[in-house]
Amino acid sequence: MPVYKETIATRWADNDIYGHVNNVAYYSFFDTVINRYLIANGLDIHQGQVVGFMVASECRYLAPVAYPDNVHIELRVTKLGNSSVTYALQLFNHEQELAAEASMTHVFVDRRTNKSTPIPQQLREALAKLRTTNE
Amino acid sequence: MPVYKETIATRWADNDIYGHVNNVAYYSFFDTVINRYLIANGLDIHQGQVVGFMVASECRYLAPVAYPDNVHIELRVTKLGNSSVTYALQLFNHEQELAAEASMTHVFVDRRTNKSTPIPQQLREALAKLRTTNE
Amino acid sequence: MPVYKETIATRWADNDIYGHVNNVAYYSFFDTVINRYLIANGLDIHQGQVVGFMVASECRYLAPVAYPDNVHIELRVTKLGNSSVTYALQLFNHEQELAAEASMTHVFVDRRTNKSTPIPQQLREALAKLRTTNE
Amino acid sequence: MPVYKETIATRWADNDIYGHVNNVAYYSFFDTVINRYLIANGLDIHQGQVVGFMVASECRYLAPVAYPDNVHIELRVTKLGNSSVTYALQLFNHEQELAAEASMTHVFVDRRTNKSTPIPQQLREALAKLRTTNE
Repeated sequence: MPVYKETIATRWADNDIYGHVNNVAYYSFFDTVINRYLIANGLDIHQGQVVGFMVASECRYLAPVAYPDNVHIELRVTKLGNSSVTYALQLFNHEQELAAEASMTHVFVDRRTNKSTPIPQQLREALAKLRTTNE
Repeated sequence: MPVYKETIATRWADNDIYGHVNNVAYYSFFDTVINRYLIANGLDIHQGQVVGFMVASECRYLAPVAYPDNVHIELRVTKLGNSSVTYALQLFNHEQELAAEASMTHVFVDRRTNKSTPIPQQLREALAKLRTTNE
Repeated sequence: MPVYKETIATRWADNDIYGHVNNVAYYSFFDTVINRYLIANGLDIHQGQVVGFMVASECRYLAPVAYPDNVHIELRVTKLGNSSVTYALQLFNHEQELAAEASMTHVFVDRRTNKSTPIPQQLREALAKLRTTNE
Repeated sequence: MPVYKETIATRWADNDIYGHVNNVAYYSFFDTVINRYLIANGLDIHQGQVVGFMVASECRYLAPVAYPDNVHIELRVTKLGNSSVTYALQLFNHEQELAAEASMTHVFVDRRTNKSTPIPQQLREALAKLRTTNE
């Protein structure tokens, strides 16, 4: 199965008053993993002509996670369009239990005009490698 | 129309490298507004027997917002169950343009057992006031 | 007394597991207020030739604050150099009790070269207005 | 030399509009490392009778760091009192360059009374192991 995996260490500030990682922080993990994959495959977040804007995101929380545990993220691509890509993310807690499932959609735009632009070829090939077959 | 409105000042750290409020920060605005409404209507986040766990969230990003602008949030309730509530949130930028639409679902649980529990009566009445009619 | 005042609404995520605003979040309030003042007085954080880099910061925490309370920040300037400025910040909780005192130092640099550069005249005049007399 | 070392992966949201890790985020790294050490040595952040409150923090920023790089933190203890401890922290960037130096002070208090309390013996011994000799 095509997948990109990364482990993220939770932080003290991720825990909320109820002692679990705040629901907001999950998205912070997800766009960290997504952009790390994009950067490793040619996206220049500082100067590049193309930038990725998030246009939609969603998450279902299935089991709590808490600092100081590590979480394990799996990244796949469920839809790869001309200028947009939809990611599927799964978050496993330190007991390897599926704790959250998410979807996020990037539209790539020109840095100067903010108009949507085709995904550069190198990025497209990298994203295609993560595409699930049950599309 | 039943609605709870709140203005939130963006923070320096909300902006990401692309100069806009990071997609993650929107959720931080939303659960700030939701919990502020719950607290004002009787939820004791420090000692209360009942706590709200987020089980699902989603957001569509329609227009960018950026620090240092204020954003305006409107909170409604689209579904009010026995122990769960689904919120609809709209975020307007400083030009009063709809910049994001979101949905978030709380399940209320007993603080000690983590088992779902009926929404306390005072909270339920407060949430019912925000219920949209087109349910 | 020359001073710039701003009220900041705390957020759900500011509270840590102990039920108080996390010590880290205070700095987030402070650089939000500082940059808001700089932006209102001509700093262009998106395109400007000059950017402010923080080179030092410190804070003493005197009394706890907690979401959902507002905090009130007072900003003064204790040192105004050629290319650097040191701010003094006081944070008052919702009972008007002094809850934290901080100091932060910006060095202004050229956006492209990262070399220190004189503070632009309009900014300098704005900062001079906040200068305390007991320097 | 007695020291506790930990590597932290930066996150997308750590970068600010200038493309570097925001000065605030450094403190988030630091209290993550400190508490991880305390938890590994017996601190129960959920139910323990003793909690650590930060009463002072400071940082000097020497070189920029940026997502997606890892940072390496070294934790030492410079002062170990009856109920308080002062930590020294050094942050090295991915090129092993010293990028920040910080100091943070915890006072341990009783969870219920908020009054300062002696550091529990197991924690004290763990902290003593990190004590620098040039005290």
